[in-house]
Amino acid sequence: MPFGYNGKVLRVDLSTREIEVETPSEVFYRTYMGGSSLALAYLLRELKPGVDPLGPENILVFASSVLSGIPMGGMARFTVAARSPLTGLFGEAEAAGFWGPELKHAGFDAIVIKGRANKPVYLWIHDGEAEVRDASHLWGSDTGATQEGIRKELGDNLIRVAVIGQAGENLVRYACVVNNLKHANGRTGMGAVMGSKKLKAIAVRGRQKLEVKDPDGLRGISQSLVEAVKTHPGEQTLQKLGTPSFIMPLNMGGILPTRNFTRSQFEGAQKISGETMEETLSLGNEGCYACAVRCKRKVSSKERYEVSPDYGGPEYETLASLGSCLGIDDLEAIAKGNELCNRYTLDTISTGMSIAFAMECFEGGLITLDDTEGLELTFGNADAMVQMIEGIALRRGLGDLLAEGVKRAGEKLGGEAKKYALHIKGQELPLHDPRGKFGVGLGYAISPTGADHIESAHDPFFQQTGAGLESISPLGVLEPVPALEAGAQKVRLFRHTQLIWNLWNCLGICNFIAQPPWALSLNDVVKTVLCVTGWNTSLFELMKVSDRGMAMARMFNLREGFGRKEDIWPERLFEPLPDGPNKGQTFTKQDLEEAKDLYYEMMGWDRENGEPTRGKLFELNLEWLLE
Amino acid sequence: MPFGYNGKVLRVDLSTREIEVETPSEVFYRTYMGGSSLALAYLLRELKPGVDPLGPENILVFASSVLSGIPMGGMARFTVAARSPLTGLFGEAEAAGFWGPELKHAGFDAIVIKGRANKPVYLWIHDGEAEVRDASHLWGSDTGATQEGIRKELGDNLIRVAVIGQAGENLVRYACVVNNLKHANGRTGMGAVMGSKKLKAIAVRGRQKLEVKDPDGLRGISQSLVEAVKTHPGEQTLQKLGTPSFIMPLNMGGILPTRNFTRSQFEGAQKISGETMEETLSLGNEGCYACAVRCKRKVSSKERYEVSPDYGGPEYETLASLGSCLGIDDLEAIAKGNELCNRYTLDTISTGMSIAFAMECFEGGLITLDDTEGLELTFGNADAMVQMIEGIALRRGLGDLLAEGVKRAGEKLGGEAKKYALHIKGQELPLHDPRGKFGVGLGYAISPTGADHIESAHDPFFQQTGAGLESISPLGVLEPVPALEAGAQKVRLFRHTQLIWNLWNCLGICNFIAQPPWALSLNDVVKTVLCVTGWNTSLFELMKVSDRGMAMARMFNLREGFGRKEDIWPERLFEPLPDGPNKGQTFTKQDLEEAKDLYYEMMGWDRENGEPTRGKLFELNLEWLLE
Repeated sequence: MPFGYNGKVLRVDLSTREIEVETPSEVFYRTYMGGSSLALAYLLRELKPGVDPLGPENILVFASSVLSGIPMGGMARFTVAARSPLTGLFGEAEAAGFWGPELKHAGFDAIVIKGRANKPVYLWIHDGEAEVRDASHLWGSDTGATQEGIRKELGDNLIRVAVIGQAGENLVRYACVVNNLKHANGRTGMGAVMGSKKLKAIAVRGRQKLEVKDPDGLRGISQSLVEAVKTHPGEQTLQKLGTPSFIMPLNMGGILPTRNFTRSQFEGAQKISGETMEETLSLGNEGCYACAVRCKRKVSSKERYEVSPDYGGPEYETLASLGSCLGIDDLEAIAKGNELCNRYTLDTISTGMSIAFAMECFEGGLITLDDTEGLELTFGNADAMVQMIEGIALRRGLGDLLAEGVKRAGEKLGGEAKKYALHIKGQELPLHDPRGKFGVGLGYAISPTGADHIESAHDPFFQQTGAGLESISPLGVLEPVPALEAGAQKVRLFRHTQLIWNLWNCLGICNFIAQPPWALSLNDVVKTVLCVTGWNTSLFELMKVSDRGMAMARMFNLREGFGRKEDIWPERLFEPLPDGPNKGQTFTKQDLEEAKDLYYEMMGWDRENGEPTRGKLFELNLEWLLE
Repeated sequence: MPFGYNGKVLRVDLSTREIEVETPSEVFYRTYMGGSSLALAYLLRELKPGVDPLGPENILVFASSVLSGIPMGGMARFTVAARSPLTGLFGEAEAAGFWGPELKHAGFDAIVIKGRANKPVYLWIHDGEAEVRDASHLWGSDTGATQEGIRKELGDNLIRVAVIGQAGENLVRYACVVNNLKHANGRTGMGAVMGSKKLKAIAVRGRQKLEVKDPDGLRGISQSLVEAVKTHPGEQTLQKLGTPSFIMPLNMGGILPTRNFTRSQFEGAQKISGETMEETLSLGNEGCYACAVRCKRKVSSKERYEVSPDYGGPEYETLASLGSCLGIDDLEAIAKGNELCNRYTLDTISTGMSIAFAMECFEGGLITLDDTEGLELTFGNADAMVQMIEGIALRRGLGDLLAEGVKRAGEKLGGEAKKYALHIKGQELPLHDPRGKFGVGLGYAISPTGADHIESAHDPFFQQTGAGLESISPLGVLEPVPALEAGAQKVRLFRHTQLIWNLWNCLGICNFIAQPPWALSLNDVVKTVLCVTGWNTSLFELMKVSDRGMAMARMFNLREGFGRKEDIWPERLFEPLPDGPNKGQTFTKQDLEEAKDLYYEMMGWDRENGEPTRGKLFELNLEWLLE
């Protein structure tokens, strides 16, 4: 060191409107690399424990990575992080699209935002400069109007804008941040944090060429990736159908969450499948910066619902959260719901799960027609879903309660309602039933951000067939592990793949370009870092970066008072799997507790509370956390 | 899996003379890879705790690795392992030369030897076959006569023979195994284990071509290595002067053990230096299989001592153990002592340190002229050293006591003598004064085989200047750590480099081709494994192999009753450094205990006794150790 990686971090205090540019050392960049890890390095140093997530003391970090902005597919993700208003814990969410690379081209790796503006503002960042601008005229607008307004005002249609809509302004606890109208930093309520700071948007534009230490080497990897995508079965499926392609296999596997997880197969699955979407609403596919896969859907409709093609098509999670999990088989309604979520900036998972909770309460008599102002909030009612989305975003009627998330809503309603509130650490369950894949379930329990499906590779996809095993063999995983197993081999596999997925959160790599079986191999990722930065790195070092990020997230939560006892499933997940080939399958509390024992020890965390040991913190260069 | 790595393990029961050929699975090979790790996989499964190391129940393993035998420099090392008669713990020692590659060419990765022959035998292994042959006529011979006898008997001068001389036969507790008369598996008394089994030698010869999955790739790395050696300053020094080149810098640094560690600079250093050897006794350099460095010395003399050129020149450790540590500045005498050790198969480190112990006892009046049969056993007496070597090997007079090692000798003599017995876990200290390099000292304390200088990279060589830092950056070590520091950064550096050096023990890689700053880089090692085996490996996976080996060695020792309290220095090392630029420097017991706390936790071992946690064993695929 140094090899010459230069990066800048923009610091903005919205209370004082002060703007500073920081140039961290190369050792800092090589230690944290970007994304969630880089964000945590700031949050743990500068954010005091116990502050109001929606108060001015919260710190909001937008972080790309040392790889972001390079002309290569799958490198476009960035992180938004802060203390979460939904969970009270470390909050983070990633999105791809074009915004992250544009931030890099504008001269910055990350933005650290403090304070609260006294009136609505937006940030305008371009070519190494930044300014805080008035956004009073944009307040109350949805994402589309806001993006258009800013582009017009600044006179450049290529400006990339990360925005909140009304849900963010109204502090819906699971409001998200959306860029290009369709790419969402979805979970943990980062949009509400923006709203609390009166920060309507961050607009970025840049023409700086990124320095790449070995351009020929990088070109080689990038071109190989483009070629690999052309024949790779997984990538081809994503290109043709996107994540909606998951609906049918998950339904056949009996792990498609249906009617608030009371069923695990949906009789209307075919109607909301990727195949059906392709035949009906689809206008084709779209992609993120420099990506050859182009897995995003573009849809439209002008029949029962007018669906704009500008807000993207529903992903798998949305088809399940607004579809099967609500008993809704109306694809057009789901597409409309997706559009509304992207307009208002609502996380589709938490939104759907909040409505699912309400529907189960309604059917159980815990919410009445009085509460819903006459709306028949039953499973299967597509119109009710669409109306509830608007209600939540605008905090109208019952929507105001649901805008708080199922944990708080369940506690308010009390009694049986608490059982229907399917959340972990306050965050609503994603749409993969862990009773059929224990690794995903362990990820739900252990994720620092509450229930999260992006914790580890989705085991059944590669283990039942053994396909993909070779691609994870660089991790030392040499033998297949059955999906339904809860033992030590599964915990080991989970831990290794979790570190990989968290590494993607640090490097800004897409899980769909680099998940098993990867089109981009693990060793290609190592080479990519080497080519871009000139660092003589290794998978060992990169795994340590990820391990470090995991330990930092754990430390964040421990200082907020959360530990082992919060790493738990809601009761319903301990009930037998209701449908499908593995009907009756259960994992016990003991299974989960034993897996946690092993997991903590594998991580170098103590068994009592999952706290990283002193030695582990030192090993990871995190001695500063002991101060 | 499988990718097609095929290997064979030869099993020999000397009691029954049964020979079997085992073909372990590819997963087994990829899990352990070779050397100490592969040996431990057998020892932990098949050797009961508490057996007499010199009884027929002990198991002796010779293990090369998946890389051994490839036509590339620095890949010639192999391991001999068993329960050690010196320490009662895991015993292992590596040697290079030609024997390991020849074993591979003869068709085997490893040999597992059980039982005890009823009369002296040797093993003859060639071209996939093996036989136990009578060695009665060779018993009592030194290494030279034995090797010559076997080659003549079998009619092939290219047979490679690993032999014990009289010291092995006489069960000197630190007897070694020697191949080609000059390459010693030096430490922990593996020669005594051979002797106890009445196994005089293992002769190997093979013409099988090794399958290499990517010969062009391998050729590329190998040729780059040859080129790198030509200009690499460290390798060039090794080529010109060998390890004797270390004498002068260590003396200048004030860490050259002198007169049984009572001093740390030697007034006669210049006379025993590599430079002086080059000007006086040297006949040039020699090398190991396929190596371009050729760091071994060839020496001869016909003056006061007749020194044969066939037994190699003294290495740094020998120059210090038979030289400075005995206050002897007579290079010719040291060269003679070295020859005798290689003839008799005595470990030069333990031999020199045993004599140093005796000299300090003699000067302190604890050993008298009666005990020595008139020999003036004072520091500086070169003749006495030469005579004592013979006495030890043949267990004559005082030599019989010293043949037991300093721990037992000190206990027998009692009183002050115990203070002069410089050992850890029963094994004599190597010749690097840890008071000037804490990482080496931590390695002494923690090494599973007792005091050992091959536990981690010798810190001062690359840290004081910062040179070499880039080469270890793939481990995530990004900043220099001062040699005299005992804190967490040092422990972290030690742990990472220890895993690397132990990896070399598993892969059979030479520390002089791949130590910081490496001629062969860490990433080249990864590529080499990939090219040879076809395994899509990574530095992450390789570090796990090493981590696994460390945990297995620890488990071996724990079941023999050794734990945290045995990971300690002899008292003398807590006294101030007596000479040199860091004169007065001390590390306290608290420094060492705090370092152990951190080290254990970094390893995933508990602090109480340094025992690998259940989770750690599962992480490393070592669940079978819990059975």
